[in-house]
Amino acid sequence: MSDEPTYTEKGKPFERDTNYIQDRVTARPGTSADPYVGSVDVETWPVEPGRYRLAAAKACPWANRAIIVRELLGLQDVLSMGLAGPTHDADSWTFDLDPGGVDPVLGYERLQQAYFARDPDYPRGITVPAMVDVPTKAVVTNDFPQITHDLFFEWREHHREGAPDLWPADVRDEMEEVMRRVFTEVNNGVYRCGFAGSQDAYQEAYDRLWTAMDWLEERLTDRRYLMGSAITEADVRLFTTLARFDAVYHGHFKCNRNKLTEMPALWGYARDLFQTPGFGETIDFEQIKAHYYVVHTDINPTGIVPAGPDPAVWLTSHDREKLG
Amino acid sequence: MSDEPTYTEKGKPFERDTNYIQDRVTARPGTSADPYVGSVDVETWPVEPGRYRLAAAKACPWANRAIIVRELLGLQDVLSMGLAGPTHDADSWTFDLDPGGVDPVLGYERLQQAYFARDPDYPRGITVPAMVDVPTKAVVTNDFPQITHDLFFEWREHHREGAPDLWPADVRDEMEEVMRRVFTEVNNGVYRCGFAGSQDAYQEAYDRLWTAMDWLEERLTDRRYLMGSAITEADVRLFTTLARFDAVYHGHFKCNRNKLTEMPALWGYARDLFQTPGFGETIDFEQIKAHYYVVHTDINPTGIVPAGPDPAVWLTSHDREKLG
Repeated sequence: MSDEPTYTEKGKPFERDTNYIQDRVTARPGTSADPYVGSVDVETWPVEPGRYRLAAAKACPWANRAIIVRELLGLQDVLSMGLAGPTHDADSWTFDLDPGGVDPVLGYERLQQAYFARDPDYPRGITVPAMVDVPTKAVVTNDFPQITHDLFFEWREHHREGAPDLWPADVRDEMEEVMRRVFTEVNNGVYRCGFAGSQDAYQEAYDRLWTAMDWLEERLTDRRYLMGSAITEADVRLFTTLARFDAVYHGHFKCNRNKLTEMPALWGYARDLFQTPGFGETIDFEQIKAHYYVVHTDINPTGIVPAGPDPAVWLTSHDREKLG
Repeated sequence: MSDEPTYTEKGKPFERDTNYIQDRVTARPGTSADPYVGSVDVETWPVEPGRYRLAAAKACPWANRAIIVRELLGLQDVLSMGLAGPTHDADSWTFDLDPGGVDPVLGYERLQQAYFARDPDYPRGITVPAMVDVPTKAVVTNDFPQITHDLFFEWREHHREGAPDLWPADVRDEMEEVMRRVFTEVNNGVYRCGFAGSQDAYQEAYDRLWTAMDWLEERLTDRRYLMGSAITEADVRLFTTLARFDAVYHGHFKCNRNKLTEMPALWGYARDLFQTPGFGETIDFEQIKAHYYVVHTDINPTGIVPAGPDPAVWLTSHDREKLG
């Protein structure tokens, strides 16, 4: 027996633990600036430039969302960011890319320390992204969909001029539906394939994933972005999975009906976003591959990281502008 | 510790054991009918219709060569064939696809029994293909390149009418060179990637493989087959690796610079052969995938077999006839 964590459970389908620290950072206490959602019934922390640090990792698709949204909205000066390395150990993401292996603002070697500062008995996984309160060096929230939501609605007065409307009110209902399906079938769907504990669970996950990929391929055939002619939060959420598809999910997670490059609309769409400021520069294929292939020792015990595919294809022309 | 065999050795490159039982079946005792090779200094057995059984497995690329050559030369009536299932156990290929799990001619459940009939202390791996002497139920040879060579040169009087000249004398020197490079860099090259015991060994294997794949891509751009306008033994040997490339080697062995389908000349060539009688019908993608993904427990411990890719692409048109 080894102390390595296991990601697959024999005979079982993969179930994601979606219990997070649900505090929120809001513009006004106890309420959300998003008229679409109701009252806020969790603890709220004040929006305050310079107060928080976004702990993220370029390897992680869930953290990648927050990295992109922070860029798109121009929040870099009011919200600092610490980046953990790609290959965390069994207990925690670590700041091994920083000089001395220590995050220069928090003074931590391990992100776990920020979780323990919040709760010395913190019982769950140490995940990124996490918003960390710099004065107390404690995690405020690691609820990733809420983090990007609040960066948009609550930090609005700090957005850069001309920041995109990532949550357009006129398509909100449909966008929520699209994001829900993208999350369950694609963002989490690839993990359901890769961490399946039985052939049956894998096959069911594979069929669900590709049903959704075919739906997206069709949807994006005559729409430049998921909700039409402008980039929204829904695109950010789909992009971070697509960026990892051929590099990791195709082989490592056995999502191999075909490569992303073999789906014309999705591949054009993914390159279109990659080539948009705020997206491509947040993608580090080496870190992404290292993360999955090194960390998941129960599905890649050799730890060998594949050399392919060549990421240069992401810079080829996509001709999606014609969709408006 | 488990009793499962391991295919990778930590820190080491993969080295294939190329020690085989080298007896040969020849038309005349002690000599070869191939003028290109010299005298035969191993034991020889007589060509004799009905005497031998070719033990093979559709999963195995080395056995696949012999299955194809037997078909191309029309030797089915003089050389019977037993097919083992794809997922052998730690010690032996097994006849689990046969009724009762027993080869109907040899009466064996396990191919190992034919090796032990030859040598009760047989110390090496139980491999396919193997030529088995039916009267004694013992292995004559498992020297796979020699087996297909001898099916051509020694069994000539039993070839079907119009059987192809798989070893054309006028290109023999070059063909030997091509086959040598295909063996070391491609046939065995994919295994060197997949069974690498270190990142460095993998990277070196990957670079060697793709250097050779690029050479083949170029060579096949203006040649229909490896040696020109007719199918030779060199094509049989390359084909069995190409047929497994996207289904297994791309993901499982991390040969993922690109898929075979992304190399226009090689992909057209592979489909051309697949659609030629004697080739495609010997390919069973389900058995191929099951073999690699189930047997190599040290690189795929979950034993999950990927559902993709869709093999229907093998039947698409290739337009290679124009090369003559």
